[in-house]
Amino acid sequence: MARVVVDVMLKPEILDPQGQAIVGASDRLGFSGVREVRQGKRFEVEIDGEAGEAELAEVRRMAETLLANPVIEDFSLRVE
Amino acid sequence: MARVVVDVMLKPEILDPQGQAIVGASDRLGFSGVREVRQGKRFEVEIDGEAGEAELAEVRRMAETLLANPVIEDFSLRVE
Repeated sequence: MARVVVDVMLKPEILDPQGQAIVGASDRLGFSGVREVRQGKRFEVEIDGEAGEAELAEVRRMAETLLANPVIEDFSLRVE
Repeated sequence: MARVVVDVMLKPEILDPQGQAIVGASDRLGFSGVREVRQGKRFEVEIDGEAGEAELAEVRRMAETLLANPVIEDFSLRVE
């Protein structure tokens, strides 16, 4: 079994109100030096066998279809 | 400026219905070999200056207070 991590983040040009709310809250709670926060999703995908090229291509297709919205989100894959 | 990534995942013993729904959908869409999916949150925290020990301790405290629910979630930090 192999674990592939898929990180999904909003594209840089897309406004991130959740991230902005966290910066506001961190100021009020006294956390200093926080310039910006961006919130995204992390998926841990456990697949049968090794994570070879074919398996990674399959997870990439799955990310494009199920895990990310390619219009407003970017994603990256890595084997852990 | 430095970027600290905070990954927040449900504790292993906590049921992940979102992850289970994704496995079901991936089967129906013909993605083979997906054994399990766990969904979590990823935060990119931009901080002023370098990410030294003191700054990382601050982000860790912020993660414990604002970004994760320590009762049901684990988190990890890394500098990117």
